[in-house]
Amino acid sequence: MLTCPSLFFPQSFKAILTPQSLLVLDFRGFGLERWLVLELAPQLASQSNSLPFEFTALEAILQHKVNTLHAQLNDVEPVLMDTLESLVDPKILSVDRSKLHILLQNSKSLSELETDIKVFKDTLLKILDEEEIIEELCLTKWTDPRVFEESSLGIDHAEEMELLLENYYMQAEELANKTRELKGLIDDSESVVFINLDSHRNVMMRLNLQLAMGSFSLSLFGLIGVAFGMNLQSSFEEDPRVFWLVTGFMFLGSGLIWRRLLSFLGRHLMPSVPPLIPQVWKRNMKASDIRSGIR
Amino acid sequence: MLTCPSLFFPQSFKAILTPQSLLVLDFRGFGLERWLVLELAPQLASQSNSLPFEFTALEAILQHKVNTLHAQLNDVEPVLMDTLESLVDPKILSVDRSKLHILLQNSKSLSELETDIKVFKDTLLKILDEEEIIEELCLTKWTDPRVFEESSLGIDHAEEMELLLENYYMQAEELANKTRELKGLIDDSESVVFINLDSHRNVMMRLNLQLAMGSFSLSLFGLIGVAFGMNLQSSFEEDPRVFWLVTGFMFLGSGLIWRRLLSFLGRHLMPSVPPLIPQVWKRNMKASDIRSGIR
Amino acid sequence: MLTCPSLFFPQSFKAILTPQSLLVLDFRGFGLERWLVLELAPQLASQSNSLPFEFTALEAILQHKVNTLHAQLNDVEPVLMDTLESLVDPKILSVDRSKLHILLQNSKSLSELETDIKVFKDTLLKILDEEEIIEELCLTKWTDPRVFEESSLGIDHAEEMELLLENYYMQAEELANKTRELKGLIDDSESVVFINLDSHRNVMMRLNLQLAMGSFSLSLFGLIGVAFGMNLQSSFEEDPRVFWLVTGFMFLGSGLIWRRLLSFLGRHLMPSVPPLIPQVWKRNMKASDIRSGIR
Amino acid sequence: MLTCPSLFFPQSFKAILTPQSLLVLDFRGFGLERWLVLELAPQLASQSNSLPFEFTALEAILQHKVNTLHAQLNDVEPVLMDTLESLVDPKILSVDRSKLHILLQNSKSLSELETDIKVFKDTLLKILDEEEIIEELCLTKWTDPRVFEESSLGIDHAEEMELLLENYYMQAEELANKTRELKGLIDDSESVVFINLDSHRNVMMRLNLQLAMGSFSLSLFGLIGVAFGMNLQSSFEEDPRVFWLVTGFMFLGSGLIWRRLLSFLGRHLMPSVPPLIPQVWKRNMKASDIRSGIR
Amino acid sequence: MLTCPSLFFPQSFKAILTPQSLLVLDFRGFGLERWLVLELAPQLASQSNSLPFEFTALEAILQHKVNTLHAQLNDVEPVLMDTLESLVDPKILSVDRSKLHILLQNSKSLSELETDIKVFKDTLLKILDEEEIIEELCLTKWTDPRVFEESSLGIDHAEEMELLLENYYMQAEELANKTRELKGLIDDSESVVFINLDSHRNVMMRLNLQLAMGSFSLSLFGLIGVAFGMNLQSSFEEDPRVFWLVTGFMFLGSGLIWRRLLSFLGRHLMPSVPPLIPQVWKRNMKASDIRSGIR
Repeated sequence: MLTCPSLFFPQSFKAILTPQSLLVLDFRGFGLERWLVLELAPQLASQSNSLPFEFTALEAILQHKVNTLHAQLNDVEPVLMDTLESLVDPKILSVDRSKLHILLQNSKSLSELETDIKVFKDTLLKILDEEEIIEELCLTKWTDPRVFEESSLGIDHAEEMELLLENYYMQAEELANKTRELKGLIDDSESVVFINLDSHRNVMMRLNLQLAMGSFSLSLFGLIGVAFGMNLQSSFEEDPRVFWLVTGFMFLGSGLIWRRLLSFLGRHLMPSVPPLIPQVWKRNMKASDIRSGIR
Repeated sequence: MLTCPSLFFPQSFKAILTPQSLLVLDFRGFGLERWLVLELAPQLASQSNSLPFEFTALEAILQHKVNTLHAQLNDVEPVLMDTLESLVDPKILSVDRSKLHILLQNSKSLSELETDIKVFKDTLLKILDEEEIIEELCLTKWTDPRVFEESSLGIDHAEEMELLLENYYMQAEELANKTRELKGLIDDSESVVFINLDSHRNVMMRLNLQLAMGSFSLSLFGLIGVAFGMNLQSSFEEDPRVFWLVTGFMFLGSGLIWRRLLSFLGRHLMPSVPPLIPQVWKRNMKASDIRSGIR
Repeated sequence: MLTCPSLFFPQSFKAILTPQSLLVLDFRGFGLERWLVLELAPQLASQSNSLPFEFTALEAILQHKVNTLHAQLNDVEPVLMDTLESLVDPKILSVDRSKLHILLQNSKSLSELETDIKVFKDTLLKILDEEEIIEELCLTKWTDPRVFEESSLGIDHAEEMELLLENYYMQAEELANKTRELKGLIDDSESVVFINLDSHRNVMMRLNLQLAMGSFSLSLFGLIGVAFGMNLQSSFEEDPRVFWLVTGFMFLGSGLIWRRLLSFLGRHLMPSVPPLIPQVWKRNMKASDIRSGIR
Repeated sequence: MLTCPSLFFPQSFKAILTPQSLLVLDFRGFGLERWLVLELAPQLASQSNSLPFEFTALEAILQHKVNTLHAQLNDVEPVLMDTLESLVDPKILSVDRSKLHILLQNSKSLSELETDIKVFKDTLLKILDEEEIIEELCLTKWTDPRVFEESSLGIDHAEEMELLLENYYMQAEELANKTRELKGLIDDSESVVFINLDSHRNVMMRLNLQLAMGSFSLSLFGLIGVAFGMNLQSSFEEDPRVFWLVTGFMFLGSGLIWRRLLSFLGRHLMPSVPPLIPQVWKRNMKASDIRSGIR
Repeated sequence: MLTCPSLFFPQSFKAILTPQSLLVLDFRGFGLERWLVLELAPQLASQSNSLPFEFTALEAILQHKVNTLHAQLNDVEPVLMDTLESLVDPKILSVDRSKLHILLQNSKSLSELETDIKVFKDTLLKILDEEEIIEELCLTKWTDPRVFEESSLGIDHAEEMELLLENYYMQAEELANKTRELKGLIDDSESVVFINLDSHRNVMMRLNLQLAMGSFSLSLFGLIGVAFGMNLQSSFEEDPRVFWLVTGFMFLGSGLIWRRLLSFLGRHLMPSVPPLIPQVWKRNMKASDIRSGIR
């Protein structure tokens, strides 16, 4: 009796199948109960087809399980795709943290779904491997006369059973492939998010550096102004041209030094590009356009 | 004698099982001794059930091992989930280092648990593979009369043994799945922590850049003030309107330059968004709200 | 009848093969319909070769599938190589985001292609495993007379069939290897992109730090100027040499302090290199040239 | 003759085992020679036990190999654990580079050890798989009389040989598990090191940003002072209260603006936390304490 | 005829082997042609040994293939090791980008080599699996008389063939292990490079923060100087001591505030270390020496 196939699906239920009855153990949760009463029972009761009872019961259970897995994947997939799409958006500077939370939760659901599919596949494989035993022990064992009749009609239940199981196995395999692809997509998207964030940071850091260069130039030449602001005798106090000379020197000098620092930065960050003299600022801003590639 | 199944669980004990006796070798640690004396011994002594001795002993040992693995996972899991939840909290700027330490320790425990489960599964698989040998050599070999009786009663101990082992194997498999899911969750959470930290850094860097732009503007126009502060003749000394003109120019000029720099930053970081003229500061602060997605 | 090989390719079609007919189910999409009508039908109709029908049909279907997979890989590969080459370009400071988008899309296509190849391989393996059944049931079963003739001619269709399938399997294997290599290349390139971005950032941060050192020196000695600029009696007001002394001290002092800070930075970042006194700035800029290695 | 088990351990030696002799080929390195002469030779010569020669020789070689692997792991493990512990220390800001070098070297040793263990396991598996051949060809083939005697005594060398090999296989398996756990620990520790470094960086960046806010406020209100420092007529020169008014405005104003900026930063980085008004600085410094978690 | 082993090595050639002849198809590239003409042909022609032709031919081809794989690995390995050594050099601040390019290229070569080795191993495995078929069909089938002679001499070609193939398989396995170790080393080195770069960045950021603290202190107390520099009446103008008082307050004040900020930074980054009062700067610089570990 114990050698009948006992289906064990973690997180759902355990069923023992005999030719006359189906024992469903350990079912819990509302949805499952409803399915058992509203769908499985009538389906098994109807028996309009000429197939043996255990065949119908196994098909109903497997179909329900595959449908549940499909539904779970269909729940997770669109949310995940939406979240990933908004995360890899190249225009964003910082990541919306609620999206990350959604991503993490869906990633967890995907892992659990992957485990469920794996367990389902293992269960199917185990039934397929022990097929001969099932054939002999459970399937149509006590209904010999009908079997003999049918086998003369060219219908072989064990063969059909195997095809049924293989069909479900292939559906599970497809689900597993989809899940693996989604996991890969999450990984790839995370890499892209990191590159995006790093890239943004580099752009901001270069702008920051360019401003620091400007501030440094202004400080350097401002020091001249501070020096002349001291209450000390510089002997230039009376010459009206010196004011304009020194002021002009301060502004022009800081401008020139800034420009030299910017062009130094440009050369420093892009060593092999020939030095471009005009429009230093513009060139730095559009540096990403002149990449020639390493081919 | 040596062909009897010898169970070898690293980090716990080694047992040799014969139909008459159970040899437990290499047990160490207080908890195990207590279990051997307080639980295993009475359980084996009671023998209320009609099952052969080696069957009961093996079941007791396997049950104890599975219980230990379950307990270990139940120890690690809630602490790990709590730690991960507090780590992926999007509001935190820097990570609590004590949490990281807890994470690392639990991750290590999880790896060790994974190894334990793997070894347990391998041991079960090996016993299952050598089942025929066990059947012949150890199980109820010397108790032929009873076996013959029972087999006529339809009870097959070898078959039952196999089901028992398979049941424990499935429990171990479930534990392994759980462990793998937890490891995956740790990896995903770490990615989220990295994205969170990077994202925070980018936000701070943009604020820093905006301030650097402000400071630069102030330095640039402050240079005018410094120039007029020099003890040099600028010929404007006597005109009372020049003070207000120059002061106004300094403040307005730095404000305007800052605004231009901020709008340049906005355009530079979000190239495809059309330039927004009013409320530059606000726009930059809420830039993350106007993302339209790449769909 | 159901035991005939039914080829199931997700995302394309399902075919059932009998010696007399080929049933193609679930085909969808324009391209496939065109292939069925324009290429497959004439190919099967011509029958110029003496091979049995199911042999020709299977070869045509497999050839079409392998060609499709080859075409898909050939679509993805050059785009991917181009994108990766431009991404790992060491001269770029920030990553072109459109390239990242292309990378992500192609990476996804590659995953889907990988799944397709895996499914194709599994299907071939399953047919190869069930070969004996196929041999007996489907292939040239009803054409006994011709088979007897041919087998006397030394031609064995089952053997030839197996070689055909193995050949396609090896082509699929080669495609899978190529796909795996491409995935590995994407991962390696991403690492290089990260190192590049990090490296750029470090260079910019060192420049920033050197400028911050300069600004700090200028602020420190500028404070002297500010002090002498106060409207307070310092008793040096009348001495004409003090102006030049203090001004010189300010400029020389900040220069010296800057130089000391730069050399401190150089020593701090490269601890084991002996202190180089002359040309502090140059040394820092070319620090990457004096690495001696850790061998 | 060639069918005798030839043990091939890369990086150590190759041995060919016959019932009469042990050929050790390709041994190199001082330690191995010493072992061969000082330990293996006497061990094989003594032959005090009644076991056949090839049995003793194989056991000696395998024991030596397992001991070597154990010794290698024991060399690597404590150094690695020490290095990892000091690397994941949450208090460190930058990583000691010599530790990184040690980590890299030990990680490499671990990889090589992993390969060695894998090769050892494969060799054992191959001998176990070809057991029947060994049984027939090499083991006690020419000593038929003794074998017959012993087998009547219930001693079966082939069985014992298999148990010996399985024992060594399990030891190798345990070593492999340990190695894999260590590799996992290295990966986990590296993640923790990265999170630590990133976390430190974020804390420093926030401090930097807070200082930049302070500097900006001082610059902004310092501009007023610079304006009044100009040698231009502001018509306030004679009013003695204006000095204190303007000075007070400068200091109070920069203080207020700084406080507003700091509270803006606090709100900006922790959006959902209700605004905390008092003790802005303290709050920012201890922001990591008020996390409420996402549970 | 088609059942003879056909060796298929992607990217090199395909060979069909019969007892009388060796058909080499699809060879391309200069090197291979040269090898065929200059080495393979004479080797096969000489036939000095008594071994059958197909044996010699197979050995020659496999030897050539293994040699090629060895040569490829020997090309890649030293370059890769050199590049990795210079990349993980802890003294470097930014990574030499040309080294990254070399790394990427060698990593790609390694992936291709890995695929080649895998294909070679699969080919050998397939020949080994189909050994009985080969034995019967190809090897010395038509040379019955000699075979009978030799088998009476105790020479078994099929056995020898198997040993030959196993030997080449083990060489390929060793190459595969080496390749895997190299790939692992690349991954580990990349992690170390990242930690190095991050660590450098943190050190620079701390220096930057310390300078920002200094600049902030100078700005704060410089504001006093700016206030006294205003052309407003402060009533202290005539007191000669006030100049020295205010100047001293400015310098001492900024020094003290800086020191307090530095000690705050020190406490903030290393919370559990007791506050160290003397030599603030030194302590910060050598902070990495006072780590006490988490053991």
